[in-house]
Amino acid sequence: MSGERYFVGLDVGGTTMKAAVVGDDGRPLSEPAVLDTHPERGQEAGLETMCETIRRAVAAAGLGMDRVTAVGVATPGLMDIKAGLILDPPNLKPWKNVPVRDHVKAAFGKPTAYQNDANAAAYGEFWVGAAQDAKSMVLFTLGTGVGGGIILDDRIVEGEHSHGGELGHLRIDTPDRGRLCGCGARGCLEAYAGASHITERVREELAAWRGDTKLRAYFTANDDELTAKVIFDLAAAGDGLAAKVVDDTAYYLALGACAAIAAVDPETVVFGGGMTAAGERFRSAIEGYVRRFGLPFPTRSVKVAFASLGSDAGFIGAAGCARLLVGAK
Amino acid sequence: MSGERYFVGLDVGGTTMKAAVVGDDGRPLSEPAVLDTHPERGQEAGLETMCETIRRAVAAAGLGMDRVTAVGVATPGLMDIKAGLILDPPNLKPWKNVPVRDHVKAAFGKPTAYQNDANAAAYGEFWVGAAQDAKSMVLFTLGTGVGGGIILDDRIVEGEHSHGGELGHLRIDTPDRGRLCGCGARGCLEAYAGASHITERVREELAAWRGDTKLRAYFTANDDELTAKVIFDLAAAGDGLAAKVVDDTAYYLALGACAAIAAVDPETVVFGGGMTAAGERFRSAIEGYVRRFGLPFPTRSVKVAFASLGSDAGFIGAAGCARLLVGAK
Repeated sequence: MSGERYFVGLDVGGTTMKAAVVGDDGRPLSEPAVLDTHPERGQEAGLETMCETIRRAVAAAGLGMDRVTAVGVATPGLMDIKAGLILDPPNLKPWKNVPVRDHVKAAFGKPTAYQNDANAAAYGEFWVGAAQDAKSMVLFTLGTGVGGGIILDDRIVEGEHSHGGELGHLRIDTPDRGRLCGCGARGCLEAYAGASHITERVREELAAWRGDTKLRAYFTANDDELTAKVIFDLAAAGDGLAAKVVDDTAYYLALGACAAIAAVDPETVVFGGGMTAAGERFRSAIEGYVRRFGLPFPTRSVKVAFASLGSDAGFIGAAGCARLLVGAK
Repeated sequence: MSGERYFVGLDVGGTTMKAAVVGDDGRPLSEPAVLDTHPERGQEAGLETMCETIRRAVAAAGLGMDRVTAVGVATPGLMDIKAGLILDPPNLKPWKNVPVRDHVKAAFGKPTAYQNDANAAAYGEFWVGAAQDAKSMVLFTLGTGVGGGIILDDRIVEGEHSHGGELGHLRIDTPDRGRLCGCGARGCLEAYAGASHITERVREELAAWRGDTKLRAYFTANDDELTAKVIFDLAAAGDGLAAKVVDDTAYYLALGACAAIAAVDPETVVFGGGMTAAGERFRSAIEGYVRRFGLPFPTRSVKVAFASLGSDAGFIGAAGCARLLVGAK
């Protein structure tokens, strides 16, 4: 038996769960095992699916469970990280007060870390991804919503109420004038840069847009085919309105980044999620706005990068949390 | 010789320097030694004044330097915390690239910690002040400008470029519509809640104010006598316009607090500085706006408190940094 250590990272999402075994170097030993979450089947079934996904990951790595040093599990919020509980997450209904950490720990008899999914993704990017050379980083995850995670000197900012790094709710416009966010407040970054809010902005811009745009066609028959991806693709193809909406998105994200910089002054700000497929032009637009609107001294040097681990960041980061739990080498 | 440990904390400001010896319990052994900074006499003289203030503090405590375990020095920015340098602070002109830590360390032959002044004040309040029972806290310092510091699990968020906790530059309005801040950007919290900006807001509000107000008199002969203190005192005495301006200030501070909460989700948010003399009514106004406009889950439980160490927070916190450097007991 070699001295190598192996960690299982499990990333629980509303649709699927993914797990893989990851070595001390942060590299997965195989493609992840993936199972459907089926939250509607209830939380007992969900806990069993978590364990089964972990078992399959260990099998896919060609190992026995005895070779696993520790396990890390990442789930969406609301959660109580310290207590190891899923509380009441909107995309895992009807689950409530699910003792994830204790269940997984008892099932395998291994030290078990528990973390918020966006925090885990941030830790993955910090450990072996886009910020692997940084001492501190802030991650914005771009999807239907905007999430985030903050890592300072190899420590995750969990927050006192498990809400550290809720960067989608940094406010970028005022409570009276800002766009309405799903959280009930106005002006949150998510209400501008969340995927569904981007399509909303297109709809509003169209009313005043005088030029040609392929986006107009989406508001006749096939309204629900308008996705953030379509908008970004049209922008890349030269559509003027799409380009404006994408540039505005870069501006809004930069304002969020400026707030995170004023708070914790990280070495690197990373953006992850589907929109980053838009590539260097989008990244450099964000960076330009950060340097223009952020505090001059730190924003002169801060790095603005796109995530490099894709959807693997969650389970790699969860495995990294397991490794932190038993002591990183 | 007893086993007690003693730390000297020195807080360097633009006008005066203050130092005192502080025990392991965070209590100063005497009133602080205070000397004028006289930045205009140059940085060599400034470094000597720092050492002299430290010597006087040790004498005031009735100790010899041999009884001092470590020294902590706090200065205003710009600075390079890791390198121990004052870079180019606006209120210490013409100082530039002053090797504070190495000078003080060589002068006394003691382990010497170096920290930003607002971070040190935050650490003081965290250690033995308003947040002494909290595991994490965010401090807003209210004065001419708005500064800040963030402490998470006994660690100061210094930032990669020594700009962690620049909370006065959290943006609470947009770059196009916001008030102009001294940093050159628009919409920073400081441009609303810094003392001079509060008097500016009074001037603007007066134009539209139909009712009686004692504030009107300040814009005839004695314009420069209008201070934030006058406004807060008039508000307490029932002046309608002054009360509006103070309530608006509470609202703006709450928006800043909401951003800090979304970023790091602290257990306690503390406000320090002269304005907090306004007392419980002002504090509860801030708290009310935090709960109304912040993320529901963490703001339900976050504590909003006023600082308790007054202007001692800086040197007590600097001593606390010295204690952290050699290992807190």
